[in-house]
Amino acid sequence: MLNFNYCNSTRYVYGPGEHLNIGKLLSPLISGRILLHYGGGSVIRTGTIERIRNSLDAAGISYVELGGVKPNPSVALVRQGIELCRKEGVTLVLAVGGGSVIDSAKGIAVGTPNTCDIWELYSHKGSIPEHNPLPVATVLTLPAAGSENSPNTVLSDEQTKRKLGFKHMMLRPVLSIVDPTLFLTLPKEQMAYGACDMLCHIFERYFTNTTQTDLTDALAEATMRTIMLEARKLNRNLADVDAWGQLALSGTIAHNDLLGLGREQSWACHGLEHELSALYDVPHGAGLAVIVPAYMEAVWPANAGIFAQWAVNVMGVAPHRDTAAVIQEGISRLRSWYRELGLPQTMQELGIPANADFDAMAQAACHVYGGGVATPTLPGVHPITAKEAADIYKAAAI
Amino acid sequence: MLNFNYCNSTRYVYGPGEHLNIGKLLSPLISGRILLHYGGGSVIRTGTIERIRNSLDAAGISYVELGGVKPNPSVALVRQGIELCRKEGVTLVLAVGGGSVIDSAKGIAVGTPNTCDIWELYSHKGSIPEHNPLPVATVLTLPAAGSENSPNTVLSDEQTKRKLGFKHMMLRPVLSIVDPTLFLTLPKEQMAYGACDMLCHIFERYFTNTTQTDLTDALAEATMRTIMLEARKLNRNLADVDAWGQLALSGTIAHNDLLGLGREQSWACHGLEHELSALYDVPHGAGLAVIVPAYMEAVWPANAGIFAQWAVNVMGVAPHRDTAAVIQEGISRLRSWYRELGLPQTMQELGIPANADFDAMAQAACHVYGGGVATPTLPGVHPITAKEAADIYKAAAI
Repeated sequence: MLNFNYCNSTRYVYGPGEHLNIGKLLSPLISGRILLHYGGGSVIRTGTIERIRNSLDAAGISYVELGGVKPNPSVALVRQGIELCRKEGVTLVLAVGGGSVIDSAKGIAVGTPNTCDIWELYSHKGSIPEHNPLPVATVLTLPAAGSENSPNTVLSDEQTKRKLGFKHMMLRPVLSIVDPTLFLTLPKEQMAYGACDMLCHIFERYFTNTTQTDLTDALAEATMRTIMLEARKLNRNLADVDAWGQLALSGTIAHNDLLGLGREQSWACHGLEHELSALYDVPHGAGLAVIVPAYMEAVWPANAGIFAQWAVNVMGVAPHRDTAAVIQEGISRLRSWYRELGLPQTMQELGIPANADFDAMAQAACHVYGGGVATPTLPGVHPITAKEAADIYKAAAI
Repeated sequence: MLNFNYCNSTRYVYGPGEHLNIGKLLSPLISGRILLHYGGGSVIRTGTIERIRNSLDAAGISYVELGGVKPNPSVALVRQGIELCRKEGVTLVLAVGGGSVIDSAKGIAVGTPNTCDIWELYSHKGSIPEHNPLPVATVLTLPAAGSENSPNTVLSDEQTKRKLGFKHMMLRPVLSIVDPTLFLTLPKEQMAYGACDMLCHIFERYFTNTTQTDLTDALAEATMRTIMLEARKLNRNLADVDAWGQLALSGTIAHNDLLGLGREQSWACHGLEHELSALYDVPHGAGLAVIVPAYMEAVWPANAGIFAQWAVNVMGVAPHRDTAAVIQEGISRLRSWYRELGLPQTMQELGIPANADFDAMAQAACHVYGGGVATPTLPGVHPITAKEAADIYKAAAI
């Protein structure tokens, strides 16, 4: 295990009915007006935003609103939010939504007190803003991205077709409310996309060459098994509020970096997928289901030990001296789980044409995730060159 | 799962050599003079305190010192620390030690700004002090109690022979440094006591009648297995610094309440053991090894489901339709692990006389842990009456 320095400062409130307490829970944390930030459609239709407004009103909290966040949230709306927050003297951004809304809120939170264009911060890996972000709070309406307890945000620029991330420790929300009753109206494919994303957040941390990681290995395996179990429960019955609760909590643990403590991390699959989302606007979870098995097939020989451990401890494959067979069986079971949840298996099913420019996408993915070196690679158990990345895209094509 | 509201605000710094960074890490967190609090013997002999002083000096941190904390830390020394902190205008208490030193530091931290006698706060379950405690920071030298990341403290009063706990969310340390190189000089029995205590911290949360707890069940099982594994590694080789690291991290997770989120909790074994420590000054971990199997034998029929799940998922018993046999095999394997680590099996081995007043101890344990009702019981899968508590003591006698 590597040395680490970790602080997870989010106040995490879980339970049926808890979203009605947002005003009361937020009151001690704010010093002025807040921005209420959300998407459109379901949060309005289901009355969630109205109930949040009522709770804020009852607590005497002053707020302005900005709705309209879309999946793969756009930097254009973030710029609009920054202008609004500056004009209205906003002191905290409250996101009511899933990962897209929360990531958009984080973009607004970091952009408001900083004069540079927000996309500059996202465009330069590791950039440090001059001023600390505004605090962010969340009411989660879609468990998937883990943004409710992470310091990360990912935005897309529609003009340049780039999807880029930014990380700042003060973007870890000060308060997140996870109320599983809010998930009961979600369609099945959203559940599947979410579970797929959560699982991949753990893969990116679990499949590593770092050794002496017994505890985080075991915790990661426990969380992966739970995600797969709860997603299957929900696939049978979307009204299972307990399964929603367990899935949501697993999604938080999957991405708050508890499971990544002291480990090298990969993020190769996210790097490969972000190109799909940026260019073809596919749902992130659907893109991952296509990328992950092809990635695993390509890299497992570099560290058969960790892949065999995963196949046995997570996928339930019986241990066997034929390690390759154990791993292949593990990957087959993962494909089978994706299929069971109705997730796509190929680029074709994602609607990505066979003549897509996979070489250019591979170059771009390596460039974003590989840092500013001459021949960048995607990190992980085996560093992926642009050539290998293109091969992974092609293997996932049909 | 029950609703919960959780915030783990500790900055947790892990790794070989990290204790040398205490001054640098503490600097941004303090506003004035601090108290350096420790035990005696090993931290002085090994040069740890001297290295801490050097690091504080190098960071220009002003401090006063109070050493002399003993196992089962005494309220008398805490009172002395409170006087010192008031006189010297101390603004943070830095504990360098194990659970005893940290718990003593927490007592000083809460007592300093409050005028009531400190033992009053410990004597009344759920009491709320008028003023918030001073912040506490820790450098852990003995992984066991989990106090480096918990809001809890336990003190003993030598005069009244009472051992009592107190909890305050602001007693969760603001900074904890876990440097496994500091554990390399610990004797084997300290490792065994520590591992036993950690495991029991999870038992108190895991064995519950709360249902729909898939994720925390799985995380708890992962942590229990890791504790048992690492303790065995250390039992073979106390110089295994990686195993110390994994054990210490497991000990933190065991007691920072991640594994207790949304669950009813028991604390019956701790209640039963605290009487042994208070009256006979036995090491807490040794007392638990004697109490736990007798407790399990007494209560498992009340919830065979969770005990069978534990036997299979933690103790590695093959699932079988004869649930009672599975559970008994699980308990036998636990006894065997205790024996392997050289832990005592009976009151007799603890040096507690056969004619000890088990009835009075049982009454006292139920009184402390059962709250202020007429016929208090120890909570858990089956509420333990004073009569049953006495039977558990007697079953563990020889």
